[in-house]
Amino acid sequence: MKARRLLITGAAGFTGAHAVHYFHAAGAEVTAVVRRPPAARLWPEGVKQQVCDLSDRSAVAAMVAETEPDEVLHLAGRNSVPESWRDPLLYMETNVMATLYLLEALRARPAGRILVAGSRLKYQPGTAAGPPHPYSLSKTLEELVSLAWGTLFKQPVLLAEPCNLIGPGPSTGFCTLLAQHIVRSEAAAASGADAPQAFRLSSRQALRDFLDVRDAVRAYDYILRSGAEGTVYRIDSGTQRTLGDISVKLLAHAKAPVPMDWGPDTPGQALGPAGTAEGEAPDEAVENAAALGWKPEISLERSLKEIVDYCRSGREGRLS
Amino acid sequence: MKARRLLITGAAGFTGAHAVHYFHAAGAEVTAVVRRPPAARLWPEGVKQQVCDLSDRSAVAAMVAETEPDEVLHLAGRNSVPESWRDPLLYMETNVMATLYLLEALRARPAGRILVAGSRLKYQPGTAAGPPHPYSLSKTLEELVSLAWGTLFKQPVLLAEPCNLIGPGPSTGFCTLLAQHIVRSEAAAASGADAPQAFRLSSRQALRDFLDVRDAVRAYDYILRSGAEGTVYRIDSGTQRTLGDISVKLLAHAKAPVPMDWGPDTPGQALGPAGTAEGEAPDEAVENAAALGWKPEISLERSLKEIVDYCRSGREGRLS
Repeated sequence: MKARRLLITGAAGFTGAHAVHYFHAAGAEVTAVVRRPPAARLWPEGVKQQVCDLSDRSAVAAMVAETEPDEVLHLAGRNSVPESWRDPLLYMETNVMATLYLLEALRARPAGRILVAGSRLKYQPGTAAGPPHPYSLSKTLEELVSLAWGTLFKQPVLLAEPCNLIGPGPSTGFCTLLAQHIVRSEAAAASGADAPQAFRLSSRQALRDFLDVRDAVRAYDYILRSGAEGTVYRIDSGTQRTLGDISVKLLAHAKAPVPMDWGPDTPGQALGPAGTAEGEAPDEAVENAAALGWKPEISLERSLKEIVDYCRSGREGRLS
Repeated sequence: MKARRLLITGAAGFTGAHAVHYFHAAGAEVTAVVRRPPAARLWPEGVKQQVCDLSDRSAVAAMVAETEPDEVLHLAGRNSVPESWRDPLLYMETNVMATLYLLEALRARPAGRILVAGSRLKYQPGTAAGPPHPYSLSKTLEELVSLAWGTLFKQPVLLAEPCNLIGPGPSTGFCTLLAQHIVRSEAAAASGADAPQAFRLSSRQALRDFLDVRDAVRAYDYILRSGAEGTVYRIDSGTQRTLGDISVKLLAHAKAPVPMDWGPDTPGQALGPAGTAEGEAPDEAVENAAALGWKPEISLERSLKEIVDYCRSGREGRLS
């Protein structure tokens, strides 16, 4: 059987790096698309690398024509809320227009499936409140245009909305930031230097659903293989935890005292992520990835331990 | 009192040309923004002209910095459904991104009001059906991003959704097309040449709300002066008419036989415009411009007569 020819965008990112490893190991012919060539090679032998600025329409068209993918896993995009406030147009260009350039380039080819990774920080368009930040606006529109291109042009477009992804690797998320703080505290204690400044938890009671990134990548495989076109697949662990709980579990791995500022005690603030559209009833087709037979396999405990181990290893972006 | 400094985009278009005349006559300091310099001057003395490609982000920023508008009437955009099928990305770039470049450039200035002209051919995002065509998608997103920019950045953004605008001038709408056919038929009869091919009505029973463009421009003035920020104002005549009825009224002005093909008789097809979101209940604030004290003043009969007169006059884009 001919190997699946899979394009993965955002391949140098946290999820992208794991996806490249996973699909390569599963026998796919993987092309890793990056905006800039990474300083060191990030991927195993046999993975092709393509440098492409996805916000350059003609570069995207040329890249798709050259690589002729059967499938695309579109993970590229910007995902910092503070940065989106500083340069909102950049978020519209990279999260909305770049996705459209990719969809449009694929339209010129015999139908290849594309899975677009959305966000749970969407808002409900048409409501008076509006989006909580430009990042939310950009991800909401990215989903809208992807679904619209699917119906307008009969393209096989699939959508995924992962929860908070954690695990070893180049993440900039909460767990990795705290693990890095733990490792710095250990290093300071070992060398007799001053302990680092306390890590501040601004919202100890905020609830999040954490899932190992490798489980999410497996879910992407399920969706690419058997997902229904035009459907939005949510990828969850199914368990909400507070940032305080997660912090305590991570700190249990520390081999030295870790300075922490637990922030104000604000009981009753057990809130979901700001701006999430959860709880509202969307009209579009929304499924859980579990409906395709997928389920998480990596325990929270293992994820957290491996995050701390990864940070201790001093690897820079590489997974292996 | 200092004159209002008003920027009008899409100034060479049908509505734009009327808006420039109206606001200039009303004492505003008008800057007419056009993509390309028109072959002949379209506007009265005293109106400034600015050439600017609104899909060029830095050009928009420079133009707004230079002209320092108090108010913007944003009429520019592409509005052909067939063209949107041929080049959907062009519609996203000119109807969505260009509007964002304008909003973003205005954000750098002390709050100036902007009125964005939307379309009734929106779709309801998040519904499985999706947009009927790329033009609908682009206008839906244009409204969404305009309202979002208003709430995110506390910008005074106003929205208008006019119905079908008619009247003398460089329109490419149904009434003008039929009036041009009438004038060609008259010319052929006068010179003894063959009559032109029959004008085909593909949907005789389709219902539309027709309003004189000059009434709509007056409504824009009401909205700019006293409209509530973040509200979508519908601009209607309030009367739906079939294309068949309108055709009969236009043909009454003909001074020679006009070849017509009335199309199939399909009773029960008294439909509103394809893809209109009317009848659905949007969550956003929607008002009729009548709520601001505006009402139409120009009768349908006068509009239709002046369209035929305009076509007979052979003026090319100019209003006077």
